[in-house]
Amino acid sequence: MREVESGSPKSERTQVVLRVRAKILEAARNWFNRHGFIEVQTPILVPLSQGLESSSFRVQYFENEAHLAQGACPYLEALMARLGKVYTITPAFRAERSSTKRHLTEFWRVECLAPALELEDIVKVMERLITSICRYLSKEACEELHILKRDLSSINPPFPRMSYSKAIEFLQEEAIDTFWGQEIDAKREEHLSRKFDKPFFISHFPMGAQTFFFKSCPQRTELALVADLLAPEGYGEIATCGEMIDDFEELHTKLEITGIDEENYKWHIDLKRSVPHPHSGFAVGIERLVMWICGLKHIKETTLFPRMSQRALSDVS
Amino acid sequence: MREVESGSPKSERTQVVLRVRAKILEAARNWFNRHGFIEVQTPILVPLSQGLESSSFRVQYFENEAHLAQGACPYLEALMARLGKVYTITPAFRAERSSTKRHLTEFWRVECLAPALELEDIVKVMERLITSICRYLSKEACEELHILKRDLSSINPPFPRMSYSKAIEFLQEEAIDTFWGQEIDAKREEHLSRKFDKPFFISHFPMGAQTFFFKSCPQRTELALVADLLAPEGYGEIATCGEMIDDFEELHTKLEITGIDEENYKWHIDLKRSVPHPHSGFAVGIERLVMWICGLKHIKETTLFPRMSQRALSDVS
Repeated sequence: MREVESGSPKSERTQVVLRVRAKILEAARNWFNRHGFIEVQTPILVPLSQGLESSSFRVQYFENEAHLAQGACPYLEALMARLGKVYTITPAFRAERSSTKRHLTEFWRVECLAPALELEDIVKVMERLITSICRYLSKEACEELHILKRDLSSINPPFPRMSYSKAIEFLQEEAIDTFWGQEIDAKREEHLSRKFDKPFFISHFPMGAQTFFFKSCPQRTELALVADLLAPEGYGEIATCGEMIDDFEELHTKLEITGIDEENYKWHIDLKRSVPHPHSGFAVGIERLVMWICGLKHIKETTLFPRMSQRALSDVS
Repeated sequence: MREVESGSPKSERTQVVLRVRAKILEAARNWFNRHGFIEVQTPILVPLSQGLESSSFRVQYFENEAHLAQGACPYLEALMARLGKVYTITPAFRAERSSTKRHLTEFWRVECLAPALELEDIVKVMERLITSICRYLSKEACEELHILKRDLSSINPPFPRMSYSKAIEFLQEEAIDTFWGQEIDAKREEHLSRKFDKPFFISHFPMGAQTFFFKSCPQRTELALVADLLAPEGYGEIATCGEMIDDFEELHTKLEITGIDEENYKWHIDLKRSVPHPHSGFAVGIERLVMWICGLKHIKETTLFPRMSQRALSDVS
């Protein structure tokens, strides 16, 4: 057997990160399986891009055009309607040009959906999952974390929480030019996230393209029943959770407002007649989670073959 | 909470199949983790389609064209060179028109690679994995198997083996029009596979497009060091295993014979300088494995959103 080159310190670090990545997925699956979630797969080739056409990769699918899925919804909803609590670990794609250090065009997501849960419940589920992953790593990847100089022992619930409105106020107090209704972009997220030493939630964002699948708040319909989970130390958003639309009337209204042709969404609207009421879910960006847990400077370090808009598709690892 | 429609016998059957599918993946991962394999992810967006251009889906990737990966090689090799034994559970895509009952255009595969193993070794690894999955299901999914009227208790090693040449002879004896060098197509596989009541191997196929990544047999260079695993009862091929090219000279020669522009494969050739010698791997088609284990008539029954060349991409489940 030929000896494989033992490698530079940089390649040793890559190995360690890839091992931690594998352990994170193992921890997540263990948690889901222990809590009665069933693993499923959702399609990558999809006919519609769910109101997110501008950030969708197009595929020549025989005579037709298809899109690469940007997430598992609404397929995961159809599976939940049959199986109850479900989760998937799946690639997703986003055709956005970005020069930040935390955007890939191809990435993996952990997504889950569960009947009977409201926003407050799914926030707790998410908190428990992230805590469970950190505890598992502290035990099963302690050598790797030591090499990376990372300590996860202080990651315990409850995670701090603030509303979107509070976050905007806070940014304004810190003299960062921000107005209510504005997206909290990477720079602003980084600023907020430097104030914390464990993950924290920002909830009740204004309704918009990013909240297409989520219910609106009954008391304030301009807000979505959604919460982002941000990692500390400047890492920013790693996950989104929320209460999904469970009523075809609400989806109907939403499509009308967004100006999307309802004819294309017939199946999606019909699906809303059979989904549990309420139901909630979340999506975790695996590479972003790896980036924070391993303390990496750039998301490209989380995988051997990063796909980024700012560089040509290349096989050189 | 709204009650979800309890569903027809057909939809109950779908639920059972989806539960078995989840248990199969759980069993496979347990096996790999127990045996020291590390889970990795390989890219879906790839610049080249590894000599399989005609069956590749094309993606508009910003200003360039990309392909959807048809399998994890050679990315899995690069990961193995760094991590040792690796496996992945990943979607794969094939743009082939087919009217058979066992082809999807989008499907999932379990792929693995291990250093130091030759063909004979990887055949045994594959045998052990399939046996382990069957035993796990007999224990953990006995209710589901009972509903599907399936019994896996007789699936024990060793699995029968024949060479490609023997398989051709056998088909000729059965008066099926076949010549040496011909592909054993779905119809012929079905015929062979009806003679067995447990999975069986056909090994040492003639070199061709399907064996691009595999080494040739030192004694008979026209044969590939490869073995297909076929399921019994007419189901046919569910997996392929083999010894991978581990020498850049051999890959160089192969590219020359195939007429592929070597310039595009520079990274792949360079990679062969750092991979262990020897190394072997396999790929299992998850939907085909589910189809056999659940005793299904059509591969579309293995998933809620089947993608098939003979029908338009549709969301209706």
